[in-house]
Amino acid sequence: MRVLHTADWHLGKIVNEFSMIEDQRHALEQLVEAVKTQNIDAVIMAGDLYDRSLPPKEAVALADEVLTQIVNELGIPVLAIAGNHDSSERLEYGSRLFTQNNLFIEGTLKHETRKVRIDGVNFYLMPFSDPAFVREKMQQPDIRTMEDAARYQIEAIKSQWNPAELNVLIAHAYVINGDVDSVETSDSERPLSIGTAEYIPVGLLEGFDYVALGHLHKPQKVKEAFIRYSGSLLKYSKSEANHVKQLTVVDLQKSSVTQEPFYFEPLRNMRVIRDSFEALLKQRSDDYIFFELTDSDIIFDPMNQLRKKFPNAMGLEYVNRHVTTVTDIALSQSDLKSKKLPDLFADFYENYTHSTLSSDSRSLIEREFNDAERSTHETH
Amino acid sequence: MRVLHTADWHLGKIVNEFSMIEDQRHALEQLVEAVKTQNIDAVIMAGDLYDRSLPPKEAVALADEVLTQIVNELGIPVLAIAGNHDSSERLEYGSRLFTQNNLFIEGTLKHETRKVRIDGVNFYLMPFSDPAFVREKMQQPDIRTMEDAARYQIEAIKSQWNPAELNVLIAHAYVINGDVDSVETSDSERPLSIGTAEYIPVGLLEGFDYVALGHLHKPQKVKEAFIRYSGSLLKYSKSEANHVKQLTVVDLQKSSVTQEPFYFEPLRNMRVIRDSFEALLKQRSDDYIFFELTDSDIIFDPMNQLRKKFPNAMGLEYVNRHVTTVTDIALSQSDLKSKKLPDLFADFYENYTHSTLSSDSRSLIEREFNDAERSTHETH
Repeated sequence: MRVLHTADWHLGKIVNEFSMIEDQRHALEQLVEAVKTQNIDAVIMAGDLYDRSLPPKEAVALADEVLTQIVNELGIPVLAIAGNHDSSERLEYGSRLFTQNNLFIEGTLKHETRKVRIDGVNFYLMPFSDPAFVREKMQQPDIRTMEDAARYQIEAIKSQWNPAELNVLIAHAYVINGDVDSVETSDSERPLSIGTAEYIPVGLLEGFDYVALGHLHKPQKVKEAFIRYSGSLLKYSKSEANHVKQLTVVDLQKSSVTQEPFYFEPLRNMRVIRDSFEALLKQRSDDYIFFELTDSDIIFDPMNQLRKKFPNAMGLEYVNRHVTTVTDIALSQSDLKSKKLPDLFADFYENYTHSTLSSDSRSLIEREFNDAERSTHETH
Repeated sequence: MRVLHTADWHLGKIVNEFSMIEDQRHALEQLVEAVKTQNIDAVIMAGDLYDRSLPPKEAVALADEVLTQIVNELGIPVLAIAGNHDSSERLEYGSRLFTQNNLFIEGTLKHETRKVRIDGVNFYLMPFSDPAFVREKMQQPDIRTMEDAARYQIEAIKSQWNPAELNVLIAHAYVINGDVDSVETSDSERPLSIGTAEYIPVGLLEGFDYVALGHLHKPQKVKEAFIRYSGSLLKYSKSEANHVKQLTVVDLQKSSVTQEPFYFEPLRNMRVIRDSFEALLKQRSDDYIFFELTDSDIIFDPMNQLRKKFPNAMGLEYVNRHVTTVTDIALSQSDLKSKKLPDLFADFYENYTHSTLSSDSRSLIEREFNDAERSTHETH
């Protein structure tokens, strides 16, 4: 059986004031193509279908369109769970009816983890849930952390499963191998819990034939090849600019589980360009760009100038500018009183730019200060 | 064929800070009972499933539960359209997939009005749409008003139908017979359009065997018995307190179409009680109450006192109090200077209460004023 593992679509996402909806529509068209060309038997969406609990109506319409297309027109089942960005209850709407269409959406936590059997493979759908909610729902007062909650649910699955069959877990979680640095995170992943540890140790997931994870936006395995994040549909923050996004095609057999990436061109790439302002003005691109300006001088209103060449410029920062703190330019009160204004300005200039005021500039400044002082006396 | 005509569920409605969700759940349980006991073959919901375009998650969960129960467990088809309170796009989510479950939800306007054929009866589902949107979608620049839009859509239906068959229209509109006073409106109906006429003349609807209307909250026919508002599921404003809410059971045959009301007890009734404050304190009720106090005197903080007996008190007004306007008590500047304070107070009292200050009260007031004046002189 060939499964297309995807996650973190984040439909309706807005990145730095740019709606991603057209990029998402384009990416999902590639996804539908992949289902056809890769002979996919089932599609997994491992949480964060939407970017927020109240998604914009365009996102709802897009989800409706794509899910309907896959299950109705292509006749391929879809298995989806709620992520921490989704509203469980809203995602649950229609879920029981959709089952008849081979659309399996698990929004809310149930007493028993939902098992969907397709072509002899058991898929366990574990929607994201807060540990406090799992504790209450399962009436297990000892559940405190994400790890507790996951352990309880997974042990319940394992107490009933047949390990001789193919068992696939679909989960939205922050799985680590020993310590937090074992996985690569991004800025667009919202913390899964406040106050309690959000991590699940990878050991809990052993025994499954494949674990289709969502939450971390970079495609990666966690310890074992069969425990994988497919990564997000698109790049959703500057920290993801260097990711190589993919859909993951998983070939599931009891004897061996193999994966291969499916790459597609996004409508617009998201990139970081590090260059001088002058050099940037000679380039152009429709990509989503985060600029890293190498200039040491402040440029006046650089974004508006750059947007003429880069209409989808998303952000800008200076990477070579010395950050001047107040202590650097601290002067004693007596200095302030004894020094003349042109001298004070020269000090300020040197502190701020780390270069000396030229004698020409110095003369100009002196003349300006004199003029200003004279005109002040005249008008008062 | 027996149809249960309902409309204006307004799930998630909040009336005067009281969530109606439990009342709605209770009412929908009665609705499900009616489907069973009345041998219903199809359920109509003629718009305003939700009270607002972004309904609370509890409302979404309730809609999901009830619709799933009717089509899945009872096996009875449901025909629903968007009303002016619904978000067309959100209501459309899942719609094509639901068709296989005999759940027919029409959220967004289509080029052609959707026709659903059940047991030989043609149901035309006309979701609420703004005239400007109909104009654009249909590319009919002459469509300006609700009437224009409805006429265009209905003529398109009639150009293709077979009048020898049973044809039922489901619409969410403000249908009038000649003039606006021909129908009874309520305060919880939001205007359908701003700036253009929102009315549809009843004549447009002739030729159908039954027109299942939503929008007006009072159950009523418009001119003909076969053109009906079922009314809202529950009372949703003080102006609806005297309504007798019902579900409408329609017996559809080509030779005759008859209706009968199905009444059910709401979880809590919504009522107006007109009485004196003292008399009210001797009563108690869990109903939603709007008080009309007959007292002529202002009562101190009456709602908090009444809520001890009427926990679901929703509103209060005085019906016998003379509204004292500034002109009534206008005095000339010379009056103000010449009159003594007790005299001014007596005038004020008379103006305000429409009764004369008794001589006892007058003496008391004089003493108080004298005391006050003396103590002012002492302290200054």
